[in-house]
Amino acid sequence: MFTLSLISEVTLIQKDDKIILQAPIRTALKKATPTRQVIFEHPQSGLISALNHLKSSQKTRPQLKALVVATDGKEAGENFDAELQKLINMGWVCHSVFPLATVIPIVEKNYRFQSPDIEQLKGKFTLSRFAYLHQNQGETIIECPLSQSKIVALDWRCGALLAKLSQPQTASSLSADIPDITEEIAQKFLALLMATQMLSPETEPTPLMYWEFHDLLFHSRSRIGRHNNPSGGTMRFFGKTEHLPIVKPPMSDKVIKLVQPNLEYLSQIDIPLTKALELRQSIREYDEQPIRVQQLGKLLYCCARIKKIETMEIEEFGTWHFSYRPYPCGGAIYELEIYPVVNRCQGLDAGVYHYQPLEHCLYQISDWNSDVEELIDDAYKSSGEQDQPQILLVITARFGRLFWKYESIAYALILKHVGVLYQTFYLMATGMHLAPCALGIGDSDNFAKITGLDYYEESSVGEFLLGSVRR
Amino acid sequence: MFTLSLISEVTLIQKDDKIILQAPIRTALKKATPTRQVIFEHPQSGLISALNHLKSSQKTRPQLKALVVATDGKEAGENFDAELQKLINMGWVCHSVFPLATVIPIVEKNYRFQSPDIEQLKGKFTLSRFAYLHQNQGETIIECPLSQSKIVALDWRCGALLAKLSQPQTASSLSADIPDITEEIAQKFLALLMATQMLSPETEPTPLMYWEFHDLLFHSRSRIGRHNNPSGGTMRFFGKTEHLPIVKPPMSDKVIKLVQPNLEYLSQIDIPLTKALELRQSIREYDEQPIRVQQLGKLLYCCARIKKIETMEIEEFGTWHFSYRPYPCGGAIYELEIYPVVNRCQGLDAGVYHYQPLEHCLYQISDWNSDVEELIDDAYKSSGEQDQPQILLVITARFGRLFWKYESIAYALILKHVGVLYQTFYLMATGMHLAPCALGIGDSDNFAKITGLDYYEESSVGEFLLGSVRR
Repeated sequence: MFTLSLISEVTLIQKDDKIILQAPIRTALKKATPTRQVIFEHPQSGLISALNHLKSSQKTRPQLKALVVATDGKEAGENFDAELQKLINMGWVCHSVFPLATVIPIVEKNYRFQSPDIEQLKGKFTLSRFAYLHQNQGETIIECPLSQSKIVALDWRCGALLAKLSQPQTASSLSADIPDITEEIAQKFLALLMATQMLSPETEPTPLMYWEFHDLLFHSRSRIGRHNNPSGGTMRFFGKTEHLPIVKPPMSDKVIKLVQPNLEYLSQIDIPLTKALELRQSIREYDEQPIRVQQLGKLLYCCARIKKIETMEIEEFGTWHFSYRPYPCGGAIYELEIYPVVNRCQGLDAGVYHYQPLEHCLYQISDWNSDVEELIDDAYKSSGEQDQPQILLVITARFGRLFWKYESIAYALILKHVGVLYQTFYLMATGMHLAPCALGIGDSDNFAKITGLDYYEESSVGEFLLGSVRR
Repeated sequence: MFTLSLISEVTLIQKDDKIILQAPIRTALKKATPTRQVIFEHPQSGLISALNHLKSSQKTRPQLKALVVATDGKEAGENFDAELQKLINMGWVCHSVFPLATVIPIVEKNYRFQSPDIEQLKGKFTLSRFAYLHQNQGETIIECPLSQSKIVALDWRCGALLAKLSQPQTASSLSADIPDITEEIAQKFLALLMATQMLSPETEPTPLMYWEFHDLLFHSRSRIGRHNNPSGGTMRFFGKTEHLPIVKPPMSDKVIKLVQPNLEYLSQIDIPLTKALELRQSIREYDEQPIRVQQLGKLLYCCARIKKIETMEIEEFGTWHFSYRPYPCGGAIYELEIYPVVNRCQGLDAGVYHYQPLEHCLYQISDWNSDVEELIDDAYKSSGEQDQPQILLVITARFGRLFWKYESIAYALILKHVGVLYQTFYLMATGMHLAPCALGIGDSDNFAKITGLDYYEESSVGEFLLGSVRR
């Protein structure tokens, strides 16, 4: 039903009475670029012909096998078919419906491509709610987090067929109206979608039912296992853009110095870790006397200040500046920023501030206004409407700082860092007898409006409430 | 250029010499369902006619204004136009190119829809790499994280046009080949895409350039501000499916009891919190004598055991069981599970185990094999290839447990929880003189293969290395 071809990365080398198929391994985490080889020793003329067709022309699986059988005999044909299956399982073989679409494997082991038989294609079919069509580097591609493949659309009719498949279609109804699409072609296209897990099941199984579109897409692309995009610390913008500086320039000229706690003393008399862990809880009710600016300062100092900045020479990448802070961060990049949004705090006016972790001070960037009130109101609502928030710590990410180095996993890293900071705040607040509460939701667009930050450059990714404990 | 209509949620009520437009507020965090109203007092006949057309038929903005001017006069026409702009800014007005597509606002304030003029539509255009077409509840929709709108495709030609736009197109080249699409219609479709930020800029500005497709899509949909999907603890599967139990049933019959530390004693003599924070660092080199099973047990007990299970009656939702654990978790749901993957540990065979947090024991679920070795090898590579990992803690999420309650933000919550657990492990390991290191990457499909877990039901979302500190 489909025509087969080797993925473009595979080269075919014929020498010394061998055929060598060879391709680089594209999966993550490999420092060098190793290659995989499949070697055919003493190939007969039918096999040579079939492999060359697989490399450079378009034949179906039975046609390829027939080529081998015709010259090398029936047993050789069976052997070839088994070898071909191995190549398919390695993710080395594309399946196409010409001139409509090509299925390209995006995994390099355990690849499954099961051509459906005609019986399976009778009935009505709908596109999976997880499949999507988009533009990628000038190509129209169809992807799906349930799939081990991507489909490259070779023709606009692919988009037309996909758009129709939001409603249940038979091969016949699917082919109607679209020029040059016969029922047979529509059926082959359905078969491609079925073989690549891009059609909706009649009833969605329970675990799948729970997933939202953006969540499953993100999970499949930020973890490794079912895609071959570069992943990890690939340094993808090295040499292309300047890495953003460790510390943001001052965001206003209204600076408020914060008090530094005596860390040496604190390191001796502070609450035992296990006790802090055992006592930690979310507290959403506050004392009439609000939190003091000294307490805010101490907490920020112990959790998030810059301890020191160091410079390192890294062979491949030259001079590298990085900072040490109390909480851990992947690659010591520290892309998170903290913005105390103050409703009630002794010693600090209501408004929005930016924490400067090197100078250990606040820069005021907004007074109290209706947008700030909405931010506090959102926090009130998302924490169960128990008490008026005193301080809301909005955590943003300077995306470019982390995205410069990391690929595929970058935004997932940011959220893990937010969690790391949450627990650091929680434990420190517990030891300080403050009321801590992490929030799960916040309005990034409103925060961008208040601060004037570019949403794509830096926007909010986490929220944390802090207040005085009721006496 | 476009025809205008009210979004379907707006009702038009005519009474007592008033016209009231009314719609529920759909944004998150509102407990009740408040409505917004726009009232037109003493409407004249032209205004009445224009508003009714806006509700139930399809006229362009100039046509609607002309209706008012013709009957109520020129000034009334200007007033109407200003009022119409307010309705647009509220996100109450759809813009359509019939019979191709309708643009529906997905924000409820500060909505911007700027119709481009003809001059802007000359030249070549490409689809934004962030835009995507997919099936949602039987509709074909086009969305984009840069946009405040979604486009509902009313016709398969939308998919055809979109597929062509992976390559630069003029209105003329775009309309070619597709039946019934004139250059004028193609131009209007381009105008729709331009007005909704779905076309690619000629040069991508720096902050946008850093973003990957899956990251920006996820950021925009897991934060509030630019969509109106239900968000937060919406209890979306309440009454539909059983909530998964707090504790997983035993995963094998090979159980290994872990020692319980003396918590009361520990709470007194444990390392001071601030000291742990200051000393904490990632350590990737180990002692020849590997970590002991007693140490693993103590760490798991102090970080992740179930302290108690409680039952609560919640008015709306009946009986609710939840657990207390040392680390915080949104809604006390605790969807994360911990799987120690053991390479070298005194007192524990190499293999894969599941931590049962209520009984505080391990269930062995796999011996050492080549897939497990690959898991360890991945961890070795992603931690800088410094030393052979001793124990890899793989963290999974039982997705359904959290997804049952939370919407839009659910997967983002999971990653924040992973970060919370990372920092809990880090601090505890620091106090225990163990070598901790959080990892940023892991193979969820390989872990699913090893454990036999259904990828969609429960798969790995985090990894953490633990070993003995070199003496």
